[in-house]
Amino acid sequence: MKDTQNSMEENQTGERMAFTFRIKNEYFRVGLAETLCTFVMMTFGLGTVAQVVTGGGLFGDYLSINVGFGLGVTMGVHIAGKVSGAHMNAAVSFTMCLFGRLGWRMFPLYVAAQMLGSFLAAGTVFFLYYEAMFHYCGGNFTVTGPRATAGIFATYPAPYLSIPAGVLDQVLGTAMLLLCLMALSDQRNQPAQRGAEPLAVGLLVLLIGVSLGSNSGYAINPSVICPPESSQLWQGGGLRSSGQATTGGGCLWWRPWLEV
Amino acid sequence: MKDTQNSMEENQTGERMAFTFRIKNEYFRVGLAETLCTFVMMTFGLGTVAQVVTGGGLFGDYLSINVGFGLGVTMGVHIAGKVSGAHMNAAVSFTMCLFGRLGWRMFPLYVAAQMLGSFLAAGTVFFLYYEAMFHYCGGNFTVTGPRATAGIFATYPAPYLSIPAGVLDQVLGTAMLLLCLMALSDQRNQPAQRGAEPLAVGLLVLLIGVSLGSNSGYAINPSVICPPESSQLWQGGGLRSSGQATTGGGCLWWRPWLEV
Amino acid sequence: MKDTQNSMEENQTGERMAFTFRIKNEYFRVGLAETLCTFVMMTFGLGTVAQVVTGGGLFGDYLSINVGFGLGVTMGVHIAGKVSGAHMNAAVSFTMCLFGRLGWRMFPLYVAAQMLGSFLAAGTVFFLYYEAMFHYCGGNFTVTGPRATAGIFATYPAPYLSIPAGVLDQVLGTAMLLLCLMALSDQRNQPAQRGAEPLAVGLLVLLIGVSLGSNSGYAINPSVICPPESSQLWQGGGLRSSGQATTGGGCLWWRPWLEV
Amino acid sequence: MKDTQNSMEENQTGERMAFTFRIKNEYFRVGLAETLCTFVMMTFGLGTVAQVVTGGGLFGDYLSINVGFGLGVTMGVHIAGKVSGAHMNAAVSFTMCLFGRLGWRMFPLYVAAQMLGSFLAAGTVFFLYYEAMFHYCGGNFTVTGPRATAGIFATYPAPYLSIPAGVLDQVLGTAMLLLCLMALSDQRNQPAQRGAEPLAVGLLVLLIGVSLGSNSGYAINPSVICPPESSQLWQGGGLRSSGQATTGGGCLWWRPWLEV
Repeated sequence: MKDTQNSMEENQTGERMAFTFRIKNEYFRVGLAETLCTFVMMTFGLGTVAQVVTGGGLFGDYLSINVGFGLGVTMGVHIAGKVSGAHMNAAVSFTMCLFGRLGWRMFPLYVAAQMLGSFLAAGTVFFLYYEAMFHYCGGNFTVTGPRATAGIFATYPAPYLSIPAGVLDQVLGTAMLLLCLMALSDQRNQPAQRGAEPLAVGLLVLLIGVSLGSNSGYAINPSVICPPESSQLWQGGGLRSSGQATTGGGCLWWRPWLEV
Repeated sequence: MKDTQNSMEENQTGERMAFTFRIKNEYFRVGLAETLCTFVMMTFGLGTVAQVVTGGGLFGDYLSINVGFGLGVTMGVHIAGKVSGAHMNAAVSFTMCLFGRLGWRMFPLYVAAQMLGSFLAAGTVFFLYYEAMFHYCGGNFTVTGPRATAGIFATYPAPYLSIPAGVLDQVLGTAMLLLCLMALSDQRNQPAQRGAEPLAVGLLVLLIGVSLGSNSGYAINPSVICPPESSQLWQGGGLRSSGQATTGGGCLWWRPWLEV
Repeated sequence: MKDTQNSMEENQTGERMAFTFRIKNEYFRVGLAETLCTFVMMTFGLGTVAQVVTGGGLFGDYLSINVGFGLGVTMGVHIAGKVSGAHMNAAVSFTMCLFGRLGWRMFPLYVAAQMLGSFLAAGTVFFLYYEAMFHYCGGNFTVTGPRATAGIFATYPAPYLSIPAGVLDQVLGTAMLLLCLMALSDQRNQPAQRGAEPLAVGLLVLLIGVSLGSNSGYAINPSVICPPESSQLWQGGGLRSSGQATTGGGCLWWRPWLEV
Repeated sequence: MKDTQNSMEENQTGERMAFTFRIKNEYFRVGLAETLCTFVMMTFGLGTVAQVVTGGGLFGDYLSINVGFGLGVTMGVHIAGKVSGAHMNAAVSFTMCLFGRLGWRMFPLYVAAQMLGSFLAAGTVFFLYYEAMFHYCGGNFTVTGPRATAGIFATYPAPYLSIPAGVLDQVLGTAMLLLCLMALSDQRNQPAQRGAEPLAVGLLVLLIGVSLGSNSGYAINPSVICPPESSQLWQGGGLRSSGQATTGGGCLWWRPWLEV
C-alpha cells in the first residue's frame, strides 16, 4: 500500500523509475539543460504573447504577458537551476563570466544553447498558434499595422523611439535585471528566500515587464532569436521582409544598429 | 486561558476535537481524498468560469479564470497532497504509474475518483450559477453563439482549429504540465520550496492557462467530464445536443476524434 | 554604529523601545487583537471596493477587489495571528468552537470584537471616501441603480437570485472557506508552508472572491456589519432606507430571511 | 568543470570575482545603500506609471501600477535590507527613530539619501519615457487635463478632495503602512516568513495601492520628490508651472498646506 502514499512531492531516487539514464559528458549535460530551460521559458512567454495578440482582448491583456514571461522564467529556473544555472539570457551568462562565476570557455556553449532553445520555442509557438494567427490577420501576415503578428516573436521599438533612447532603454532594462539578480543571490545581504529563488527571479522579470516594457517590448535578452523558418513562412504568407524580422526577443547590442 | 492561544495554525492532534473518525481501508481513503480534492479544484475552477462568463466583464476577466484554476489546484493539493498525492488529472496519474511512483492497479481507482469529483463539482456549479446563467442567456441555453454557456463546463476548440493542430495543442500543453511538475518535485535539481509545492503547482497551472489556453481552453486534464444531468437540463433548456456536450474540461485523447 | 545595522526585520525585544506597555488581562488582549485585525482587514477590503466603485474603472477592477480582500486577510492574520488566532469571521470562530479549538465562553467575545472592528472599519472607509462617493453619485446616495454606493459597505444578492439559491451560495462559500482553512492548518496532511499561513489564507479568500463571488458578493462572513451612523448619514444624503442597509459584508444566516 | 555547477544562487565569497572593493565608512555605506534601494524602487514604480499612462490602456492598467510599486519595494528591500534596512521612506525612518531602532543622528542621512535616490529615479524615468510622453501628449506637457503627464512623477489629490479629507487620507495610509510593517516584523506575534519579508512588504504596498490609492495617489512616502530639472523641461515644453510640480510621490506633511 506504500505506493499510494508517495505524494508527487516525495521524489524517490530514481531506482524505481521505469527507465533511468545519465549523461556523463558535462558539456553536453549543461548545454542540454540550458537549451531545455530556455525552450520552456520562451514557449510559455511567446505563447502568452500569441494568445493575447490573437485573442484581441478575450484571452488576457498586457498584464498576462508579464505574468507569462515572469512565471516562464520561474519554471525555466526550476528545470535547469542546479545543472547549468538556468541563465536563459546571454547578458546573464556574460555577466556571470565577467564576475568569475562561469568560465569564459563555457560562454559560447551557453549562448549557442540559449539560441537553440529559443529558436525551437519560437518554432513551436509558431506552429501551435499558426491557425490562430492566420484567423486573426486574415492570412495577411504583416510586421506592422493593426493586425501585425510579427511582434509575437520579435520585439520592435515603439515608432517614436530614437536610437539614443533605445540604447538607454536596453542598457537600463538589462542593468536593472542584473542588479536585482545579483541582490537576490547575495547571501551576505538580503537574498531571496532559500528555495524560492526561482519565484523571486520570475517576479523580477514580471516587474521589468510592468515598468520598463513599453518602449521596446522589454528586450532585455540578447539570446532570443526568431527562427528563419517561421520568417520564411511569414514571407510566403505575405510578410514584408525586413532585416528586423531576424532579430528576436531583444538584442541588446544588435538592434539599435539594425534600425539605422 | 490556554484555549485563547490556540491560533488557527497550531493544530492539536485531534484529541480535543469533538468528533474523531478514521478510515481504515486504504483504497477508500485514497479514493475519497482524490474525489474531494478534484471536487474542490473543479468547483473553484468552474465557478470562476461561470462567474466571468455570466458577469459579462463585471466579475473578472480571462486572467481571473487563470487565477481560479491555478489557486484551485493549490487548494486541491493542500487537501489531499499527503493522502493520495492530489493528482486531480488522469494524465498525471498515468505518468506517475509510468514512472513507477504509483502502482498500475491504483490507476482505475484514481481516474474513477477524479471523474466522480469533477462530475460532482460541475453539478454543484451548475446549480449554484443556474439562475445567473438563465439570466445571462435569457433562458436559451446554447453551446455556441454570443451568449453560450456550455463553455463554462466543457472546453471547445476554437472554430479555426484543425485536428492536427488540436493534437499538437493537447500534447504540448500536457507535456509542459508534466515536464514542469517533474522539475518542481526533483529534489536533486532545483525543486519547489519545501512546503510551497502546492503554490508552485498552482502557479504552473495559472501559467499554462495564460500561455497555452486560447486554442482549446487549456484542456490538459482528461479526468474532467461534464455531468449528464446538467447536459440534459441544458437540452431541456434549449441546448443543441451534440456529442461534444458530454466531454468536459479537456479530453486529451478523446476530443480530436469526437470532432470528426 | 550598531543602530544602523538594525534592519526592519531584526526586531529587538522592546527594551530599547521608547515606550513599552503590556496588557495583563487575557480577555481584553484577545478582544483587542480580534478587533484590530478585523478593522485592518475590513479597512483594506472595503477601501478597495470604494476605490473600484467610485473610480468607475480608472482605479482597479473586480480582480482588484479580490486582491484587496485577500491580502487584507493576510495582513489581519499577521496582526493578531498568535494573539487571538485572527478569525475575523464569526463562522470561523463558530467552527473553531465546534471542533474544540476555542472555548465556547470565548465565542461571544470574538463575535463582539469582530463586529466592533468591522463597524469601525466601515466608518473609517465611509469618511475616507465620502467625497469620492459624493462626487461619484452626484450627492444622491442610493442602494441600487447605476450609481449605487451602498454595495461598497453591504453585499446584496444579484437581482435574479432566489432564496434557495442564496442559501446554497452562502452555505457553499462558507463551507469551501472552512474546508480549505482546515486543510491549510492540518499538520498531518499537506499544510501551508510554516510561516506562510497568512499568505495562504489570503490567497484562499482571493480565490473564493474570484470563483464564488458574483451571486451575492462573496458574503462568507457573518461578522461584518455596516455602521448605523454611516447608514443614517446615507439617509440624510438621500439613501432609500431599508432593512438591508443594516446588514454588512455578508450575513450567513440573516440575509435570506431579510430578503423576504 | 566545477564552474558549470555554480548556479546563480550559490554565491561565492567574492574572492573569485574579477574586482572587489569595500566601503569602510559606515555612513557612506548606509547612505549609498539607501540611495540605491530608493532609486531602484522609484525607477520601477515611476516606470510603471509612465508606461501605463503613455500606453493609454495598451501597456497595463491601474493594477499594473500597484504591482509595479509593490514589487519595486520588494526589490529595494532585497538590495539594501541588511545594510541600511531599506526604509525608502522618511515616514518609516521617522518611526524607526521614534521606536529607538535607529539613532536620531542617522535620520537626516536617511532622508537625504532617500530624496537623492528618488530624485535620480524620476530623472531616469523622465529621460527613458520622454519620447513616449512627448508622443502621448503631442508635445504639450500639462499638469492636468486628459493628456496630463505630471501625474507620472507627482501625486495630485482628486479634484473633489478637501483638506481635512486629504489629511485623513495621508494619515490613515501611512498609519496602515506602519502598523502592518510593525506586525510583519514582530517576531513574538505572527511575522512574515523568515526570508520572505521583502515579498511581504511588497504585497503590503500593493495592497495599500489597491485599497487606499484613489483619493490622492497613495502618497504615503514623504521622501519622494520630483526633480527640478524635469520640472523645468516640462515648463519649456508647456507645463503650467505651479508649486505642486515640485512635490513628488506623496508628501505627508507638505501637500495639504501647498494645496491652500
